[in-house]
Amino acid sequence: MKAVVTVMPKQEVLDPQGKAIQRAAGALGHAGVQDVRQGKRFEITLDAADREKAEALLDELAEKLLSNPVIEDFQVESIEA
Amino acid sequence: MKAVVTVMPKQEVLDPQGKAIQRAAGALGHAGVQDVRQGKRFEITLDAADREKAEALLDELAEKLLSNPVIEDFQVESIEA
Repeated sequence: MKAVVTVMPKQEVLDPQGKAIQRAAGALGHAGVQDVRQGKRFEITLDAADREKAEALLDELAEKLLSNPVIEDFQVESIEA
Repeated sequence: MKAVVTVMPKQEVLDPQGKAIQRAAGALGHAGVQDVRQGKRFEITLDAADREKAEALLDELAEKLLSNPVIEDFQVESIEA
């Protein structure tokens, strides 16, 4: 199975990387770029008996390995057979 | 408008962060995790006259600011009014 998990900084957390990109866009002449938030995207290939087991595994991975739950939110975006 | 741009390492590029996560998953008892690739995800809020202008702006941003075209591929995943 192939899955995609995304991890983004929580709304209340400052994102200096995103801010730097937004400023750089302004310097390139793109003042229309109002906000940039940078997060992570994981493409995961896994073996699981069924979709439910894959979801449980991905939730555990996302919580323990892929994100820092104090400052980031994760989402299992897709699971494909 | 709100847009999502994703940036992933090219297939032929090694991804040591992804590899480290895959090994850590194995150490947690999840041998079923066969491959992990780590990339970036950007949520961008922008002002553009229409969808076509937004696409052109996002392509330029992705190429110049969000990715390294030598080792990464980018994709404009979605644009919402």
